[in-house]
Amino acid sequence: MSSIDQYLQSQAQRFEEELCQLLRIPSVSADPDHRDDVCRAADWVADEFRRLGFSTEVIPTPGHPLVYAQSPPVAKATTVLVYGHYDVQPADPLDQWISPPFEPTRRGGNLYARGATDDKGQMLTHVKSAEAWLETAGGLPLNLKYLIEGEEEVGSHGLEQFIAQHAQRLTCDCVVISDGAQFGPGQPAITYALRGIACYELRLTGPDRDLHSGSFGGTVTNPANALARMLAALVDDRGKIQIPGFYDDVLPLSDRECRELAALEFDEQKYLGQIGVEGTTGEAGYTLLQRRWARPTCDVNGLSSGYQGKGAKTIIPAAAGAKLSFRLVPDQDPQKVTAGLQQRLAELCPPGIRWQLSDLHGSRAVLVPLDSLYVEAAVRAIEQAFGRRPVFTREGGSIPIVAVFHQTLKVDTLLLGWGQDDDNPHSPNEKLSLADFHRGIQASARLWEELSKMAR
Amino acid sequence: MSSIDQYLQSQAQRFEEELCQLLRIPSVSADPDHRDDVCRAADWVADEFRRLGFSTEVIPTPGHPLVYAQSPPVAKATTVLVYGHYDVQPADPLDQWISPPFEPTRRGGNLYARGATDDKGQMLTHVKSAEAWLETAGGLPLNLKYLIEGEEEVGSHGLEQFIAQHAQRLTCDCVVISDGAQFGPGQPAITYALRGIACYELRLTGPDRDLHSGSFGGTVTNPANALARMLAALVDDRGKIQIPGFYDDVLPLSDRECRELAALEFDEQKYLGQIGVEGTTGEAGYTLLQRRWARPTCDVNGLSSGYQGKGAKTIIPAAAGAKLSFRLVPDQDPQKVTAGLQQRLAELCPPGIRWQLSDLHGSRAVLVPLDSLYVEAAVRAIEQAFGRRPVFTREGGSIPIVAVFHQTLKVDTLLLGWGQDDDNPHSPNEKLSLADFHRGIQASARLWEELSKMAR
Repeated sequence: MSSIDQYLQSQAQRFEEELCQLLRIPSVSADPDHRDDVCRAADWVADEFRRLGFSTEVIPTPGHPLVYAQSPPVAKATTVLVYGHYDVQPADPLDQWISPPFEPTRRGGNLYARGATDDKGQMLTHVKSAEAWLETAGGLPLNLKYLIEGEEEVGSHGLEQFIAQHAQRLTCDCVVISDGAQFGPGQPAITYALRGIACYELRLTGPDRDLHSGSFGGTVTNPANALARMLAALVDDRGKIQIPGFYDDVLPLSDRECRELAALEFDEQKYLGQIGVEGTTGEAGYTLLQRRWARPTCDVNGLSSGYQGKGAKTIIPAAAGAKLSFRLVPDQDPQKVTAGLQQRLAELCPPGIRWQLSDLHGSRAVLVPLDSLYVEAAVRAIEQAFGRRPVFTREGGSIPIVAVFHQTLKVDTLLLGWGQDDDNPHSPNEKLSLADFHRGIQASARLWEELSKMAR
Repeated sequence: MSSIDQYLQSQAQRFEEELCQLLRIPSVSADPDHRDDVCRAADWVADEFRRLGFSTEVIPTPGHPLVYAQSPPVAKATTVLVYGHYDVQPADPLDQWISPPFEPTRRGGNLYARGATDDKGQMLTHVKSAEAWLETAGGLPLNLKYLIEGEEEVGSHGLEQFIAQHAQRLTCDCVVISDGAQFGPGQPAITYALRGIACYELRLTGPDRDLHSGSFGGTVTNPANALARMLAALVDDRGKIQIPGFYDDVLPLSDRECRELAALEFDEQKYLGQIGVEGTTGEAGYTLLQRRWARPTCDVNGLSSGYQGKGAKTIIPAAAGAKLSFRLVPDQDPQKVTAGLQQRLAELCPPGIRWQLSDLHGSRAVLVPLDSLYVEAAVRAIEQAFGRRPVFTREGGSIPIVAVFHQTLKVDTLLLGWGQDDDNPHSPNEKLSLADFHRGIQASARLWEELSKMAR
């Protein structure tokens, strides 16, 4: 790897310049006025791949184009699919940017621009690492496929369908994504699990109109009271979700995972202070980080009923509604959760109330086994590049595309974030540390080697 | 009474014509465009009293005038204060009226017009009954004071203050109000109790902003979930309100009251069918009518939190709020309820949540003892006029002015509704049965006699 390291060092400034070229293109996928810019960014990315001699296509979609590229085939070698995106979030509020969002500016070792960390900078690390192999070794030790989309920030419409339709072409041994953060400065991380989700709308109806609470109070089941009782009964006093079968498929944390989580430097009071609360509650028997990443939740996302204006209106409302979502963990099945929830609501619903549950959407959680050979390869690559062994983290949210890769391509995804928590990916003054950019390229170059060593 | 009855019979048509005169004045207190009409109605009422030789005043207020009148003094006789109102609800939606709201029209034994039952027709019965005494007996057997206001439909602003300031002048033995309904056609009723009320707004706040339910779910107390739990915990599974001391001052129904309530012809399924529900819940151990009129309630009047639009938004909302009201019964004190509720909320509020309770307003319940001599006098008067003994009912709602009379003048109020449940008092096609109008006058004339017999 020393020749590769030398090459990377010699080209560092050019890499930064080229990243700046891409960052100057305001490829805001949400804004129709930037439609041409989005296409220009797709072409810029495609040109990069063509310069490397990769077979490259810009694939039109009903929205913004996909860039697909493939390195020259290496027989019997590992195949890796790199996913990334070249579109960016809108830049407003513009007046809060210290330097203009599409004029990349270096300050304090960081490069400031919209898209620096999310995801142009991180995505480019996996392109530059391939270039280093080609320029120094004359070829890659494995097969690389790149799927770089232009609609990540607007919902990746159609991507799931595209992957299903081109599953054969996208066949690979694992997926690599760098579109997130390290655990902290100088502390790289591998995110090995994501939670799934199940979202619902619950609507209760009672009397056929709002009633006078004096004339009718005490005689009619009040839908707002009933909603409070039903929602309250979904979680017990110990924070356990009271839905039949809810925990049946929940994988417990392994001893190793518990140790890895416990070893993370995490300041609970600082975490709570950052969101303005002094205390918290949660499922009994689990640490805050376990609850955040590895335990399912039941959150009411919205409530609506009766009178919500100023002062009092003494009515029994005709209806009451809640938005309700569950974060799921491996191996929970959203459809089983729906069935259990319906059973529970039927039990809980009092006389005089009708209930209706709308299933808004659901997706399964994702888990990459820590003892996977791919994970071990990534650990070695990152440790060499960053000089520190990565920690293992999970993510409380969902990245739907990862579940799609898992379900459609039947492979695991390595989530290797090179960014930092304070990179402001959707806020003004987005940045990427230049050191993280270059270490990311080094780690990526080593990852190709480590993955190539694996038996097919 | 036979000469009075003969007089009433002979004047019946003129009384109807005079009621029609008053009904033609569109004294809509809520509509500034009808300000002059409201004053015309006040003058019309004052002229009635002047014609009877009563000392009469039209008293200006910041809103619409009060009409106050007093019959010629009768030494050592009972004094009765008659309360009523000459203002009416707005008439819209106009297109739903079969005949114009301010052109009184006879159909099927009823007189249709805005204000027919609420309250011009009912109020006038107590004026015409006095006229009958004056014209046939040459004088009244008791002292009558009349307080007829013009702002009942817009909140009776300032009336409480007026009564407090003129308590000496308003001194009386009891108050009589006819501004409600009989139990059914041909079945007169005396309403001997009203519930009180205590209204609140409860607001919970948690994190200082809406949070991503994936990144934070499981680690933060969700204000919407907390609100559901706290509201649910205010009432137990048997419908008992779980607030310290809440039932301490609740007067149980007497055996006689239970018998009177049980004797009422009341079809529970028909009642529930009219509001579109098939079943109901409520405080265990009480009949539906007991719960409606004689037991306290806890009703959520409104809920608001987080996302209420279409589809899903997976947030932990920063705050959640509820409108909450309790109907109170004798002898509950709204201030004690507030203190108990605060204590209970403090117990229930979980870590990570701050709560704030706003006391919107409260008023005590009212109870006139069934064995009161005034009630017995009213029973005799009504039985003679209607040919049927009145039943005793309570009212689930509150009539704040009755509590004011009770607290300020220290007297009981006889609530003698001459109307019917289907009189449409706040709806199109308001009416009053002409038979009820005339029986009301007869009952009122007899009431003056019965009350005059009472020892001072």
